[in-house]
Amino acid sequence: MEKNGSTKIDIPETSRERKGKAPLLGGSGPGPGPAEYAKGAGYKKGIAIFDLILRISAAAAALAATATMGTTEQTLPFFTQFFQFQASYDDLPTFTFFVIAMALVSGYLVLSIPFSIVCIARPHALAPRLLLIIFDTLAVTLATSAAGASTAIVYLAHEGNSGANWLAVCQQFTDFCQKTSTAVVAGFSTVVLLIFLVVLSACALRKHY
Amino acid sequence: MEKNGSTKIDIPETSRERKGKAPLLGGSGPGPGPAEYAKGAGYKKGIAIFDLILRISAAAAALAATATMGTTEQTLPFFTQFFQFQASYDDLPTFTFFVIAMALVSGYLVLSIPFSIVCIARPHALAPRLLLIIFDTLAVTLATSAAGASTAIVYLAHEGNSGANWLAVCQQFTDFCQKTSTAVVAGFSTVVLLIFLVVLSACALRKHY
Repeated sequence: MEKNGSTKIDIPETSRERKGKAPLLGGSGPGPGPAEYAKGAGYKKGIAIFDLILRISAAAAALAATATMGTTEQTLPFFTQFFQFQASYDDLPTFTFFVIAMALVSGYLVLSIPFSIVCIARPHALAPRLLLIIFDTLAVTLATSAAGASTAIVYLAHEGNSGANWLAVCQQFTDFCQKTSTAVVAGFSTVVLLIFLVVLSACALRKHY
Repeated sequence: MEKNGSTKIDIPETSRERKGKAPLLGGSGPGPGPAEYAKGAGYKKGIAIFDLILRISAAAAALAATATMGTTEQTLPFFTQFFQFQASYDDLPTFTFFVIAMALVSGYLVLSIPFSIVCIARPHALAPRLLLIIFDTLAVTLATSAAGASTAIVYLAHEGNSGANWLAVCQQFTDFCQKTSTAVVAGFSTVVLLIFLVVLSACALRKHY
């Protein structure tokens, strides 16, 4: 942010200085000169590289969340004649939604890596960046809704609710609760990384040249 | 911040105008001419007006969600000697979170209206727009997590879960379930409006002149 601010101020200053020095020659147009253009490119390239790193981390976090939740299953070591106590993520529709949403987000993040690379190669290209910011916003919403919903259920499994007479199940299914909690934490890491990606893209869009 | 933005833009404008008068002296640079500049301003002003309308709608939806959830309470008409059956939103921590998060989002949206008006008055100001896109992204995350978490609980209240032995409570607390469902729908309307706001701001940032 501070860096943005400083560059933003530098440009009118230099163009004004140049005006003061040789106003009659006036070789420099109202737009940015080649040097400023190159400077803007460097700034944007830096952002694009950081974007790529964040994107790969977010994809890894989303994949970890999907895999952790998708493999959550626990069978208790005791059983009755008719019933074996077993818990799997697909017993709860919310966790199924979590797996589907996180799989979609990981898929999107992996597929968006080429676009991020295009932004490194062509720092002034606007179309891929606008595409990325729009789909990143949708991805952040999907990931947040999945992580938020699962948090509500994980909390309920840990604490129960006396008002609704829902009992905590984590005394029995300890491994199950631990794995789902880990998945939720990974889900929120993805969300935080995606927020940074949106803000970064907004900063990169700000400077047009 | 706003003042910075306006001064920042005024300076290139005047220098460009000066150039426009004597194009042969100072060869037209790669930047936009006065006509394109005015066209860009009209485009951005249109986006800013649309942004204001969406923002007011989103604030209304968020306030409706907060108020609906915050006033949810139901007392059943029958009671035993020791116990009266009563359900309120603060029996469930998730609904309390929903009320707090939605109140924060409504407060932010109302406070952001002046910034949106600044964007109409000064279509080329970048600072307020960048501020809006960053805080809109945070607001969309907060609203989505609240709406998503409440959806999970409302679903559970309607359907129950046999695996965890959580019974549906909506047969008894029909009004309670209906009001919380309405609040969740209003919450998701806020989310959708906020997504449009982020995308609009990204489109406005795209064109620099």
